[in-house]
Amino acid sequence: MNQDKNIVVIGCGAGGGTAAQFARKTDRKAKITVFEKGKYPQYSKCGLPYAVSGRIPEFKDLIEFSEEWFKKANIDLLMETTVEQIDVKKQVVIAKKGKEIIEKPYSSLIIATGAKPSIPPIENLCVNGVLVDGVNVVRTIEDGKKIHSFVKKGKNATIIGAGLIGLEMADSLHKKGMDVTVIEALPNILANTLDEDMSNQVHEEISKNISFFTNHLATKIESKNGKIHSVSKKNNETGEEEDIETDLLVISTGCKPKISLAKSAGCKIGKTGYITVNERSETSVETVYAVGDCTEYKDFITKKSLPIGLGSIVVRQAIAAGVNSAGGNYKLPDGVLQTCTTALFDLEIAAVGSTVSREDNVSVVSGKFNGSSLPEYFPGGKPITVKVFVDEETGRILAAQAVGDNAAQRINTFACAILSGMNIETLRKLETAYAPPVAPTLDAVTLACDIVSMKMDRRRR
Amino acid sequence: MNQDKNIVVIGCGAGGGTAAQFARKTDRKAKITVFEKGKYPQYSKCGLPYAVSGRIPEFKDLIEFSEEWFKKANIDLLMETTVEQIDVKKQVVIAKKGKEIIEKPYSSLIIATGAKPSIPPIENLCVNGVLVDGVNVVRTIEDGKKIHSFVKKGKNATIIGAGLIGLEMADSLHKKGMDVTVIEALPNILANTLDEDMSNQVHEEISKNISFFTNHLATKIESKNGKIHSVSKKNNETGEEEDIETDLLVISTGCKPKISLAKSAGCKIGKTGYITVNERSETSVETVYAVGDCTEYKDFITKKSLPIGLGSIVVRQAIAAGVNSAGGNYKLPDGVLQTCTTALFDLEIAAVGSTVSREDNVSVVSGKFNGSSLPEYFPGGKPITVKVFVDEETGRILAAQAVGDNAAQRINTFACAILSGMNIETLRKLETAYAPPVAPTLDAVTLACDIVSMKMDRRRR
Repeated sequence: MNQDKNIVVIGCGAGGGTAAQFARKTDRKAKITVFEKGKYPQYSKCGLPYAVSGRIPEFKDLIEFSEEWFKKANIDLLMETTVEQIDVKKQVVIAKKGKEIIEKPYSSLIIATGAKPSIPPIENLCVNGVLVDGVNVVRTIEDGKKIHSFVKKGKNATIIGAGLIGLEMADSLHKKGMDVTVIEALPNILANTLDEDMSNQVHEEISKNISFFTNHLATKIESKNGKIHSVSKKNNETGEEEDIETDLLVISTGCKPKISLAKSAGCKIGKTGYITVNERSETSVETVYAVGDCTEYKDFITKKSLPIGLGSIVVRQAIAAGVNSAGGNYKLPDGVLQTCTTALFDLEIAAVGSTVSREDNVSVVSGKFNGSSLPEYFPGGKPITVKVFVDEETGRILAAQAVGDNAAQRINTFACAILSGMNIETLRKLETAYAPPVAPTLDAVTLACDIVSMKMDRRRR
Repeated sequence: MNQDKNIVVIGCGAGGGTAAQFARKTDRKAKITVFEKGKYPQYSKCGLPYAVSGRIPEFKDLIEFSEEWFKKANIDLLMETTVEQIDVKKQVVIAKKGKEIIEKPYSSLIIATGAKPSIPPIENLCVNGVLVDGVNVVRTIEDGKKIHSFVKKGKNATIIGAGLIGLEMADSLHKKGMDVTVIEALPNILANTLDEDMSNQVHEEISKNISFFTNHLATKIESKNGKIHSVSKKNNETGEEEDIETDLLVISTGCKPKISLAKSAGCKIGKTGYITVNERSETSVETVYAVGDCTEYKDFITKKSLPIGLGSIVVRQAIAAGVNSAGGNYKLPDGVLQTCTTALFDLEIAAVGSTVSREDNVSVVSGKFNGSSLPEYFPGGKPITVKVFVDEETGRILAAQAVGDNAAQRINTFACAILSGMNIETLRKLETAYAPPVAPTLDAVTLACDIVSMKMDRRRR
């Protein structure tokens, strides 16, 4: 092993932290340095809504790897240290910790600068560039703690954005006894995850607990004594506006990549505005890797570039960057599957495959099965809906969505099928596990495939 | 459609019943006749233990398709009718209902005669060829009802055979308040399903509730007033014998195929002693199909013939026989995966791939992951163990076993991987669904693959 190996990581989120760990696993002797701007070492951003709800007892429980952990792994973690410049010619990173300037040479550099919340153009949201009291984003432990400080039973909370994080936060605030309203600009909730019919099914279920205004824009807020008092929502169709009194506003409308360092280092930025990386997590600049929410990588089906936003993908990119930066050879699959899941009010939701792929110039046919997780004669079966999307010409499976019992594990089977390039005619004959108290002889997974297969048969006639 | 199509099915279990249904789905006009020896139309044999425990309220709830259902589907179901002869030259089946002789011509014949319990050589088990009162097998609704009639809180029950059905019955009798002992001739429980280490894990968990004597043979029983009083067990190693008082003995030591009709019809019987069928569920005799527990079909990995014993496979064979007998074209995959599952004392157990395949002349390497179903920081994660078996030379996935949270759905993902001929290096990089309350960023499925992959790496060095 090369003892002069000097691996520098910028950012100690899931991406940077995991990359450092895998670099260490690959080379026990390499020097590894991680710069982290913030106060907390590697923690779970995805866990924030559950620390707000109290299901995770304390915010500090979100920390997955402590400073001590990194120390024991012989990884030099510099907290509250901001990297200001990358000199790719000299292979040096220049960082600032308080007033101290740190110059750190590298043989491999891993950029894991992440992203920041994107703020929609809502009037009066900020005073002097600072969000009004009671208006919050969801990105850091600090954000989570702030939201938590506004939690009060019987008070109103409004969420802007009905994506995964917005709805997880809505669920959490409802669990804390708040009256929760969600405003979503698009006609459907979870629009990046589910098709309209599947989204409607979730909507119907969770609107028992929270109010929705889909196809509405939040236009402005009003404050009283420097604290938010109401938010105005506007119907996209009718133009009608209405004020909603609210004690807490949570903005969850996606994020923007932090790419300035990478840009100045000469890393190629793709059309999506994110750092372009390949299957080894390499940027366009030699010895410079990038991982996580600041990067784009291709979709497995369409091969089009997509911003990376899922923790599962970030971790996998980080494994590649960590291993490769330390001299190993780790290649990611030829694109991301975008497998994802959540649980909202105990309803499990999962999907794999880009919803975008279905807008491509591929003729897509879908099939949906709606049934029980157990044989009909067995008490206690839970509802499960599975929808599968197939390229009509080739029969190749493109995507799948599931709502209900064990949606995530069922979607993992589809993920495996997609990764193998499996044809629907093969998957429909998959021999799934059967036992009366566990699963029916023919699982929802293969029954959904049957339905799409029969549809294709009929169309061919 | 051919209006002269005349499909005859012998047996209305899961195999025969399903075949008839799929024949009907394929051809709305074909004549379809089903002969059933017994008193009940298509019911779930696998559900018997749960009707004993009361989780399924009544035995009649096990009936999946009633006589009325078959009538509505325009399928002629003749109950309590025994087929006595198949004349393959004339293409006629001769059956007997009471004293009436029925001659039924066929254009396609589907043999679904099933199997009968195999009875181990235990002394004094029968009087005049009839099992002693209190001694029971587990095959039919009648058997289940008989067992149920002996259920009494605080009394002793002994099960011979620690396979899936034996242990499901042990669980059920324990739930009814009986003291349950299981005697197993092999050194491990579930020996056809799990490797020793995985089996031990299950053993440890469920022996909290029931007593086990593995590596023991039941040698003889003693009766009092015509009813069983005790059973003798003999230690295979020490030869030591001991009597166990028991009020109920349940024999669950596999079964023997009912092949006499098929044999007389000239259908090829394989080395396993079962009817040989192909991927279309055809026997060696033209226009004669066979499905279910009376057949053998090849294993997907080893391509060796195996007796069919899993309901999931029976149903799939029946779909093939039903569709093909009615003029369609349905091919099963090139062998069975033997995906199976059960739940014992709420512990989910699942496996895919023959344990036999690992005794072949393939060098097999395995990896086992033991962890939580949720991220470490998230409360409420449940234990899950996943073991995966790989061909060391090619990296091809051969089999997998799981014990714990969602074992069955996790095994389905392995089943999909095996069906696609996937390499361990591909599956370990599968992008699984992640969300803190649902699954960790890296699921037990891929972590088990990582472990075997690293093991292979080390061996190569």
